Order: sequence, then structure tokens, then C-alpha cells
Amino acid sequence: MKDTYEITPMMTKEDATALILIAKKKKGMTWEGIAAAIDMSPVWTHSACMGMNAFPADKAATLVKTLDLPAEAEGVLTESPTKIWTQAVPTDPCIYRFYEIVGVYGPTLKALIQEEFGDGIMSAIDFDMSVTRVSNPKGDRVKVEMSGKYLGYNAW
Amino acid sequence: MKDTYEITPMMTKEDATALILIAKKKKGMTWEGIAAAIDMSPVWTHSACMGMNAFPADKAATLVKTLDLPAEAEGVLTESPTKIWTQAVPTDPCIYRFYEIVGVYGPTLKALIQEEFGDGIMSAIDFDMSVTRVSNPKGDRVKVEMSGKYLGYNAW
Amino acid sequence: MKDTYEITPMMTKEDATALILIAKKKKGMTWEGIAAAIDMSPVWTHSACMGMNAFPADKAATLVKTLDLPAEAEGVLTESPTKIWTQAVPTDPCIYRFYEIVGVYGPTLKALIQEEFGDGIMSAIDFDMSVTRVSNPKGDRVKVEMSGKYLGYNAW
Amino acid sequence: MKDTYEITPMMTKEDATALILIAKKKKGMTWEGIAAAIDMSPVWTHSACMGMNAFPADKAATLVKTLDLPAEAEGVLTESPTKIWTQAVPTDPCIYRFYEIVGVYGPTLKALIQEEFGDGIMSAIDFDMSVTRVSNPKGDRVKVEMSGKYLGYNAW
Amino acid sequence: MKDTYEITPMMTKEDATALILIAKKKKGMTWEGIAAAIDMSPVWTHSACMGMNAFPADKAATLVKTLDLPAEAEGVLTESPTKIWTQAVPTDPCIYRFYEIVGVYGPTLKALIQEEFGDGIMSAIDFDMSVTRVSNPKGDRVKVEMSGKYLGYNAW
Amino acid sequence: MKDTYEITPMMTKEDATALILIAKKKKGMTWEGIAAAIDMSPVWTHSACMGMNAFPADKAATLVKTLDLPAEAEGVLTESPTKIWTQAVPTDPCIYRFYEIVGVYGPTLKALIQEEFGDGIMSAIDFDMSVTRVSNPKGDRVKVEMSGKYLGYNAW
Amino acid sequence: MKDTYEITPMMTKEDATALILIAKKKKGMTWEGIAAAIDMSPVWTHSACMGMNAFPADKAATLVKTLDLPAEAEGVLTESPTKIWTQAVPTDPCIYRFYEIVGVYGPTLKALIQEEFGDGIMSAIDFDMSVTRVSNPKGDRVKVEMSGKYLGYNAW
Amino acid sequence: MKDTYEITPMMTKEDATALILIAKKKKGMTWEGIAAAIDMSPVWTHSACMGMNAFPADKAATLVKTLDLPAEAEGVLTESPTKIWTQAVPTDPCIYRFYEIVGVYGPTLKALIQEEFGDGIMSAIDFDMSVTRVSNPKGDRVKVEMSGKYLGYNAW
Amino acid sequence: MKDTYEITPMMTKEDATALILIAKKKKGMTWEGIAAAIDMSPVWTHSACMGMNAFPADKAATLVKTLDLPAEAEGVLTESPTKIWTQAVPTDPCIYRFYEIVGVYGPTLKALIQEEFGDGIMSAIDFDMSVTRVSNPKGDRVKVEMSGKYLGYNAW
Amino acid sequence: MKDTYEITPMMTKEDATALILIAKKKKGMTWEGIAAAIDMSPVWTHSACMGMNAFPADKAATLVKTLDLPAEAEGVLTESPTKIWTQAVPTDPCIYRFYEIVGVYGPTLKALIQEEFGDGIMSAIDFDMSVTRVSNPKGDRVKVEMSGKYLGYNAW
Repeated sequence: MKDTYEITPMMTKEDATALILIAKKKKGMTWEGIAAAIDMSPVWTHSACMGMNAFPADKAATLVKTLDLPAEAEGVLTESPTKIWTQAVPTDPCIYRFYEIVGVYGPTLKALIQEEFGDGIMSAIDFDMSVTRVSNPKGDRVKVEMSGKYLGYNAW
Repeated sequence: MKDTYEITPMMTKEDATALILIAKKKKGMTWEGIAAAIDMSPVWTHSACMGMNAFPADKAATLVKTLDLPAEAEGVLTESPTKIWTQAVPTDPCIYRFYEIVGVYGPTLKALIQEEFGDGIMSAIDFDMSVTRVSNPKGDRVKVEMSGKYLGYNAW
Repeated sequence: MKDTYEITPMMTKEDATALILIAKKKKGMTWEGIAAAIDMSPVWTHSACMGMNAFPADKAATLVKTLDLPAEAEGVLTESPTKIWTQAVPTDPCIYRFYEIVGVYGPTLKALIQEEFGDGIMSAIDFDMSVTRVSNPKGDRVKVEMSGKYLGYNAW
Repeated sequence: MKDTYEITPMMTKEDATALILIAKKKKGMTWEGIAAAIDMSPVWTHSACMGMNAFPADKAATLVKTLDLPAEAEGVLTESPTKIWTQAVPTDPCIYRFYEIVGVYGPTLKALIQEEFGDGIMSAIDFDMSVTRVSNPKGDRVKVEMSGKYLGYNAW
Repeated sequence: MKDTYEITPMMTKEDATALILIAKKKKGMTWEGIAAAIDMSPVWTHSACMGMNAFPADKAATLVKTLDLPAEAEGVLTESPTKIWTQAVPTDPCIYRFYEIVGVYGPTLKALIQEEFGDGIMSAIDFDMSVTRVSNPKGDRVKVEMSGKYLGYNAW
Repeated sequence: MKDTYEITPMMTKEDATALILIAKKKKGMTWEGIAAAIDMSPVWTHSACMGMNAFPADKAATLVKTLDLPAEAEGVLTESPTKIWTQAVPTDPCIYRFYEIVGVYGPTLKALIQEEFGDGIMSAIDFDMSVTRVSNPKGDRVKVEMSGKYLGYNAW
Repeated sequence: MKDTYEITPMMTKEDATALILIAKKKKGMTWEGIAAAIDMSPVWTHSACMGMNAFPADKAATLVKTLDLPAEAEGVLTESPTKIWTQAVPTDPCIYRFYEIVGVYGPTLKALIQEEFGDGIMSAIDFDMSVTRVSNPKGDRVKVEMSGKYLGYNAW
Repeated sequence: MKDTYEITPMMTKEDATALILIAKKKKGMTWEGIAAAIDMSPVWTHSACMGMNAFPADKAATLVKTLDLPAEAEGVLTESPTKIWTQAVPTDPCIYRFYEIVGVYGPTLKALIQEEFGDGIMSAIDFDMSVTRVSNPKGDRVKVEMSGKYLGYNAW
Repeated sequence: MKDTYEITPMMTKEDATALILIAKKKKGMTWEGIAAAIDMSPVWTHSACMGMNAFPADKAATLVKTLDLPAEAEGVLTESPTKIWTQAVPTDPCIYRFYEIVGVYGPTLKALIQEEFGDGIMSAIDFDMSVTRVSNPKGDRVKVEMSGKYLGYNAW
Repeated sequence: MKDTYEITPMMTKEDATALILIAKKKKGMTWEGIAAAIDMSPVWTHSACMGMNAFPADKAATLVKTLDLPAEAEGVLTESPTKIWTQAVPTDPCIYRFYEIVGVYGPTLKALIQEEFGDGIMSAIDFDMSVTRVSNPKGDRVKVEMSGKYLGYNAW
């Protein structure tokens, strides 16, 4: 009975990501380069391009221009994503190591945050992060810096 | 038939942790203070006191003195721990937020590490971390800094 | 080899909860009554007595007096709890219904929060909740009111 | 052997949802606006449009007119949905926070409902909910109000 | 530090169940017999004795007399239980068969309830059940009858 | 290399179910009506139409005539299905309530069956079930009746 | 408050198993030998001694005599067990291989049973099994024979 | 960019299975009949046709002739399969019963194998199985016979 | 609305793997042969061809020539893969046995590595492995040799 | 009713492991040293001492003498263990890396074993393993060597 109507699928955030990846390859750009072009950090830029964060309108517009994306991508990039990951325990070794760090040091992070700030948490929403290379004679190191607003538990 | 022998349980790493927590309370020390006393970072110190890392012999000796622990704790603290966590997805909100960060930003960390360094990972073994307070007029922030050696995949 | 030292267990938050439950029964108090006695809401009071929230120092002191708890409970009640629940899907019907509401209406809550506020979430930390009875000729109703600070995602 | 017959797929509730989302975008309507147009609450309206609740016949008719949906959508919208969610623990941060609230405060909700009403539960079927913005100088708050009929356990 | 106070454990619902089982054995009673003695159905009686339902005060009093339980059991039996089962999929063959019936016929039960009543469910709270033997020349049959109030979904 | 042969997919039980649902809609029949037309119970009829039970040959023939299904459906309907459900814990509230009943009353069903019959189970294979409406001034009730052959455990 | 009553634990099926294992060791008997003494098969005997099957009264009596068990074990051995296993996927290699056989050959067993008998199953209740050694020049073989009553699905 | 090359999918083992099922239906053969035609047992034949075992070259050739399969199926049938099952606990009742037998009798199989043979297992690789009907006045029985080589654990 | 733009899918690592498998079949090569052609080990070669490792540029070029792959495969083969496996416990018997070895001997590997090297691990990144046949009169043996760099835990 | 009999627990394999660990500490022995004393490999020795393998009678006798264990340990050490691990995915980093290797290289091991040997597996029962240090100017390496008998799948 479907023949009496048409469903023209809308561009999804997954489509937008696919278009970005194609354009990135065609133009030979890096994430660092794309981030610079829209004047945002590489971490946020990659994450938003993957559909894990929403673009502010002006950043979406700049990205569309930078990568020659179709016009309707602009609106799609500003939509709030639904953040889904399907592997409760990630298998990729590069991602797993961060999961392992949370497993090993999670209680430590909690204890030190609460010793310093009181009963509360570090926000993962009002949050930023960077990844940088630190050169080291014994082998360069990856430096990850996170900062999130301290949020104290309410008592009412 | 057990009556023909005795099993005198050895001090375990859990026992050592319990003794440390009691001594810490009795002496009114903080993790920061204990870390300073043994001249190590607070993150590593807490983690090792929780039995998630092994003490170098001299650090174990200093800790035992600092906290007046029983002598046999010294050896126990230097043993390699078996790192176990039973919640694949942690429920405590303070720890969960870090899990969430890995879920949301894991693929981003991977992409940026590999863009910068090549095909490899950040070590979680040759690794260090710190937690600090950053004051901010809109509310102080928790800063977490991690650094791990870059390890490139071998091709053979 | 354990015979050369003693581990005197410290009072835990579980012990404090057990002592509160015994005292509550002996004195014939309700949660509402205990909440009134320490001048806090019933939801927060029950939750903190269960060891799921930390008491401010003055509230801990009042509770200890109200229920004639041992003195050392006062400090224990102010400690930051580690919030653990072991049933990812709760089985008790009264609790399951709330889980079901999150399953059915979670995407709706998200859509309406984001339509009204922008890309962000309701905080579960800067948060309060109440439970009240609303009389109704077709059968009284349970009213649950939650309020949490809106937190907008950071873009950096 | 399939060539001797044809399966013309019927419009599904997923199709109806897709058609609603396309029409909503084309007309630039909000959920609040759609809800007003069919004279229902925004929470129920969004949920029913997502296929998580069934429309009464008149509401389905109004929605079809409001959004210029194909006629056969009307019947589909009135069908009883099968409510399925595949993430036992939701990953999206906005939804997770509600899951976390159930984890932390579930036993409290149960205790207070049973203290006030007796041995029973709050219905998730004879149930309604609203989401509103509460302005606040320290940052606006999300207010979620739920109300469900109290159901006492039967003893027979 | 625990030596400055005493925790006298209260009788739990598990204790009450253990006492009931011992008394039942000593007196050589059946569940049917106990149910008759307190004038309730065998299903409800067994379930409440197992701590899965709360006794009305008068039934608790009769049970205590019938089985010569300690006086404090009376109050414990009237408390609202927290209903927990730890096997999401039960392994015991007798219980598994019922789980299997829900797996195989669950969608059928839903379809027929909704065809007959509209969009709603059968309550598991305002609910009763019986188990009886039906003699049959090809082998006697177990008859299970459940009845629950129909609850229609609210639209608001 | 696939070009040297053709795979003409056979009609599956899923196809047969889709064809039944389309025909049922077109003809405006109910499950009750279909059941009457083939002279079987509504529970069994729905379940078999969903592909969860196999039709006896004559019933398949009648169904094909009643609903004007393609001829080859007849054979497909008589095939033994593989009964698969993918949600170990069903999420739909109408189905979940039955799961909950098994969780809460499973041990009770077992105890009463074994008290009455001996060490054994109720068969879920030599089994039948009905769903009926029972009118009631306080709100009509859903009545579910199951009957299964008692099977005693073998000892050998 | 527990001091006003006593809970004398009853002998459980686990206790009975422990007593059997001790007696078996002391008397140097094998399972085969115990089975012969009570005139039952070794598979059933071991399983019932492990508390996974219930003893007929006369077999319980003979076992108690054979192994000099305490008198009250007799009744305990005749109770219907609750069959619980906690590893959905067994890890012990000897048991895992049987799990693997079900995974690999399960659909084959089903297809051949249904080809031969019609739509139905092999009962696991009216069931028996043996394990024997078959000598073979290439290495002796383990032979496992199962037989269960065929149960045809009911259509009603 | 995919337009510069073509991926012609190779016949997979799933394709071969589909072709076998179609041919089996067209020719009206049974598994027993197919097994006889290639002179192998029905259990192995079905399992290999389902893609759970690899055909020796001559058996593949005979099967291709028997069922008039496309020539390239011959090679595909001889490939080593990757044996995958996605339901850790199977839901189909006919298969579940075998899973249940492993759960209930797994420790018994292990105990008797090890009593008879020593510390080792029954191989599931050097393994064979048959399913036969045993007529019985109380209802015919399914007989399953497995035999696997005994493998003793190595100590080195 | 998708009609205003085109998404030309890029060659993925899965596509590259499919092309390799087709070419391998067409040319009748073995993994050993392909490995020799690109002068790498068979283990690494197979793994990289499956998309589980990244090719160095020169090896990708040689492979493309060896197997006549389309030119754009060259770049794709050098991309860092995301390593995903979806079966936490593998079901294929050949792979499961290795999982079993980790389950049985994991703690032993840990104990001996730490006895010999100190507190640390064997790297799975700076890692190589080989598989060889060892002939043996009692049946040839599979020899697997792994070697990974020892990484000592950092203390800071 | 337990007072009429006594359950004297037998020494378990866990007890034997505890006694070994205490004796090993007291005597300051290494696993390598213990292995040498009983003339077995370190891998097997550790694993058997952990209760994951059974001792041949003479090795058990030597171990008891070497470590001055109570006499009854001798029999216990020769019992067949039930091999249980409770973490389907191990969390300890040193063990996890081996799990990761199985995840990443499992299909490769399978492909190469089957290319070299035919359709079959490497036995994990007729199996041995060693761990050695390989010195290397860039950092010493852990070498793990496994060897297991090739077992070809039976076709019958």
C-alpha cells in the first residue's frame, strides 16, 4: 500500500559525516587543517564531524564552504546528535587503553576530585579536551588534557 | 579432615589497603599529604594504596613508616596487583562521566593520535596522570592531564 | 602471618545505614519525620540515609542527635559515597516502572529539552526531586517532580 | 519461487514517523507547535509521533491534516505500538542522566511511595508527564513532572 | 573503631522465610494447608512466605500463631518487599518453561489483549493467580489461571 | 563469480506472516475472526500466523482460502518454525508484565506444582492457552488460562 | 533484636552433597560403585548426589545406609531441587565441549528430529543418559547416549 | 570513487546453503535421502549443508550432482567454515532442551568421564553423532548418540 | 531531500578485503604465497589483508601489483584500521581454543612475566607472531610463537 | 536440625593453592624454582599450583615434600580441577593483552592453521606452553611459545 505516498529520506548526520570524509580525502586535508579552517579545536572538530557534537550555526556555515558540502548539510550539522556507542567495552586497542585507564584510575580520579573540591563530579558536558605530541628522547608521548567544570551535588 | 593442618592467611593487598585507610583517618592525612610524604604524585599514590599499582621497595618502606603500618605490609605493597574491576560500565556518576568521555571521544582520540603519530596507540602502562583545580570565575574546573608513550604497531 | 597486626574495621556507610534503620524502627519514625527533624526534603534524606548522598556536617550532627546514633557515625555520614547499583535493569516492579519510563520517554525528554534549551542536558548532580500524593476521585496519584540545572554542551 | 506473488509492504509506524519528521522540517514546526495543533501535551505528542504511543482516532486525523500526511497514515498512527528499546543502559548523555536518577533514587522513590501509600507502585500506564523551563538566576532549570496512578498490590 | 557501638541486626524478610520453612517442616504442613489456615490462596501465601509479597496485618498475626513464629516476625511479614531475581533467564526447568511461554506467546498475548481491550496492558499488580490439577486420561495437566486488571494507556 | 547461477529466494515464514498481515488488513478481519474461520483458538492462530507455530495441513489450506494467500504459502505455513526472540528481557510493557510475573511467581509456581504433582514440570509443548475478558465493576480484567501436561522427572 | 529467637538452619541439599563427597572419599568408592549400590545408573546417581535430581524414597534410604549419612539426609535427598547454573557459557573445557556441540549441531538435531517425528522436541524431563568407554585402536572414545520422549507441539 | 572498479561477490557458504535448500525442496528430498545419496550420516550431512562442516572433495562433487547445484558450489562446500552462533542461550525449545541438558548434566558428564578415563575431555572435533527413533509403547523416544575421542590433558 | 546531492561511497577496508579474497581465489594463491610476494610474515599479511593491520606504503604497492587490485586500494590499505570483534567469547572452535588458553593460562602468563621482568606486561602492539607445523609421530603439532616487548608500569 | 551431624570440610584445591602460596613465601622460592624442584615446566607448574591442572601422583608427592605441605594435599593436587574463570573479558592489563591478541589475530590463526593442515584446530588439551625472556637492545621481549596437537574435524 506504500505506493500511494513517497518517503524522500532527509539527509542524516551519518550522511553529513560521509560527505565530510569524502571531501576531506578529495582535498587532502587533515583534521588539524579542518579545525584551523573553522577556528575550533581539533578534538571538538573531529567529534562534531563524526556526528557526536552539534555545530554552532556559523561553524556549520564555514565548514560547508571549506569542504564544498551540499547546502542542506548546514542545517543537519547544527542538529543535536543522539550519542550512541554500541560496544560497552571498546575492542579497538587505541580506544580500549582509555577504557582501561577509567577502569584502573576511575576510583582515584573520584577520590582526588572529592578531596580537592568536595562531593561532586567533573562535568562531561561543560568540558573540553586536547591531544598533543610531547617529544621525549625515550620515545614521544601522547598528551591528553581534559578540563570540565566541577559540579557539586545538590542537597535539598 | 582440615584439622590436621592450619591455613594462616597471608596479608593481602586488600588488607594493606584497609590498614592504610584506617591509618590515614587516624592521622587525619589527605592523599595529597601522603603523596608528598613519599614523594610521589597523588594519582599514583592513591592508586597504589588502593592496590592498583605496585610500590617500588623504597616507597613502600617510606609509606610503612609514614603511616605506622605493620612491617609485613612493606612486602605486600611491592607485589604486582591483579587489576580487576567488576562493573564493565561504572555506575558512580563521578567515574561514569569518564566512561562517557571515552564513549563519546574515543574515536576522536584515536583519529587524532593516528593523524599525528601514525598507526599506533597511547600506552596505558608507560603512563602518568594528574588531577588539578583550575580556578574560573564561572566555576572552578577539574583538569585531568594524561601522558602515555606512543607505541607504533609493529609490521613484521 | 596476619597474627602480628590487627585490622579494626572502620564504620562504613553500610554500617551507618544499618544503625539508622534500627533506630528508625525503635523510635517508630517515618522518613518524612526524620526529614522534618533535620530540615531537609524526604527524598534527599532517605537517599542520604541509604548512603547514596553525603550529609553536610550540620545535618549529620542533627541526625546523630535525632536518632541517638554513635558519635563516629557523624563523620561517616559526611563522606562522599560511591554510588553503585548492581541491576542494570531493576527487577522490583516499583523501581522498574521508572526504568520503563526512561526507556519509553527518554528520547522524548531529550527532544523537548533540546527544543527548549538547545544542545544540552538536565543535570543529575545539581538536581532535586520530590514525591507527593495527589488525591483523585479515580484513585490517588503519585506525583514525582524533578528539577535539574540545564547544562549546555561546550564547543571549543 | 517468490515470483508467483507480490508482497506490497504496508506503511509501518516507522514510516509514519519518518513522514512526520520530514513534514515537521518542511513546515518549520516545533514539537510544541504540533502538540498545540492537535491539542495534546508536547510529551505525549512527541512520544506518539515517535511511534511509542497510539493516537486516538480524532488526534490522528488532526495530525494528518496539520502535517499533510498521506491518508493511510491515519490508521497506522492509531495502532498499538510495540515499545522496544535496544540499549538496556542508554548511552546518550541526556537520556543517561535519567537512567542514573533511577539507579540512584529508585530505592528512595519506592520507600517514599510505600511509606505514603502502602505496598504498591506508581503506574507507568495511567501516567502523564511534562517538561518545562524554570528560569533561575544561577542558570535555568529543567523541570520534569510525572504523575501516575497509585496501584496497590492485590492480596488474594 | 567499631568497638564503641553495637549493630544488632534486625530480623529480615529472609530470616522470616527461613523460620517459616523450619516451622512448616516441623509441623509437617503443606503450602495448601498453610494457605487454608490463614484463609488466603496458596499462590499468594507461598509468595508472601517467600518474601515476595507483604502480609496484611491480620494475616501476619494468624500466620505467626499457626506456625508459632517469634512475635517480631509479625511486623516483618507486613513490610513491603523489594522484589529481586538475579537470573534474567531462569535455569530451573520448571520455571524456565514459563519464561519460554512468555518468549513464544508474549506477542500473542499483547495482540489479543489489545484487540479485545484497546491499547493497554494486563496489570501485574492488581493481579491474582491459581494453580490447579486437571485430571486427564492422557496424563494429568497443570492449569494456571491469571487475572489482572486491564489498564489502558493514558493520552494527555 | 555469482553471475553463473541464480538464487531465487523461497517464500519464508516471515514472508507468509507479512502476507497474512496485509490480507487481514485488507479484509478487515480480527484475529478472533481468523481463528473462527479456521476453527482454532485465537491464541494458537495468532501465534501460528506470526510464525511461532506450525499449521496442520488442513488448517493451512483453510487459512490460504480464507485470506486469499498465494498457493505456496500453504506449504510454508506447515513448516516447523525456529522460535527465536532476541530480547532476553522484553521491553514492551504489555509483554514485560508477564516476564515480571515469571520473575516474581516462578518459584511459587514451581513449589505448588511440585507439592501437588511431585518432582516435575508443566509442559510448554503439550500446552494450550486462552485470553478472555472478565467484566468487573472496578474495571474489566484480563484472564489468561494456561494448561500444560504434567511431566515427571525420570529417574533411571 | 534477633536475640529473642533462634534460627537453626535445616540441612540443605548442598549439605547433603558435601556429606556424600566426604563419605565417598572416606570409603574410597567411585560413582559407579555408589550407583551399583543403589541400583541406579551412574549418570542419574551422580546428578542426584550433586543435588540436581530428587531421590525416590527407597533410593534415598539405600544411599544413607550405603554411605552412613545422618538420618535426616534421607528426607533432604528426596526434595525437588531448584536447578541453577550460573555460567550461561560454561568455561570448564570438558563441559564447554558439550556446549559447543549444542551450538554447532543444535539446528541439525532440530531438523532431524522434526524430519523424523514432526513438529516437536525431545523431552529433557522424561529423559535418560549414559556415558561409556568404547575402546578404539586410535584412542579410546567417550560414548554418550541420550534418550528422551518425543513431545509433539499441541495445536488447539 | 568506487566507480573505477567492480566487486563481483563470490559465492559464499550461505549462498551454497540457500541453493541446497531450494534444490532439496524442488526435488522433494529429505535430509536422510540426501545423506544416503552422498553416503554419509544424516547428522554430518545436514550440518555440512548448513555450512557448519566442510565437505571432502568427493562428497562435494556428489552433492553437486545429486542436487544439480552450480559447478562453483563444489569448491565452496569444501572450504573450512567459521562456526558462529549468536544466541549464547538458544531460544528455540527443541535446541534449548539440549542446552538445558548441558547445564544440568554437564558436571556429571565431566565427573564420569574423568572417573573412567582420567583428567581429560571428550573431543568435539574427532566426534560423531546420530539421531534415531526408538519406538516405545508409552510414546516413541528420540535417541541421540555421541562419540568423541578421549583427550587427556598434557602435563609438561 | 537527498536528491540535491550525491554520496559516492569511498572504497572501505572491507571492500579492499573482498577484492583481495577474490583475487587470491582467481590466482590460486595461498596466504603463505602472498606473504612471500610482499616479503612479510604470513600472520601479519593475513591480518593486514583482513583489515586488522595497516600496510606500510611500499607493501601496499607491492600487494596491489601482485594481486592486480584497483589503484585506489593502495591508499586504503595504508589506513589505520579500527579493530572490532563482536563476539566477546568467540564461538568458532579453532578460535575458541585460544580464548580458552587465555582463560586457563592467563594468570600463569601474568605470574611468570612478572616473576621474570617485574611489574609490567607483554605489549600487544610492538608484537609479532608466527604459526608453524611441527611434525610429530603421534600427530603433527601447531606451534604458535608470540613475542612482544616487555613494558614496565610507570610509577610517577 | 543440623546439630545431629557434623560436616568436616575436606581440603579443597583452593586450600591447597593457599598452602602453596604461604609455603612459597616462607621458603622464598620462585615459580621457576618450584618447577625445577618437581622437574616440570614453569607454566604447567604454576597453573597446576593455581588449581588449573591436575598433578600426576609422583609430582604431587615431590611438591608436598619440597614445600612441606600437609600430607592430605597430595591427593587433592591430583584431582581433576573444574576450570572456571568469571571474567569473560579479563580486566587485568597483562591478561587482557592476550585476550586482545585472540580478538585481533584469532581469524588469522584459524586461516593459517587451516591453510597448512586442513579443516581442524589446535588442541588446547594436548598442549604445552613456555614463557621466556629474549634480550633485545630496544628493550627485552617476552616470548610465548604454544604448541598443540592438530586435530582434524571428523566427517562421518
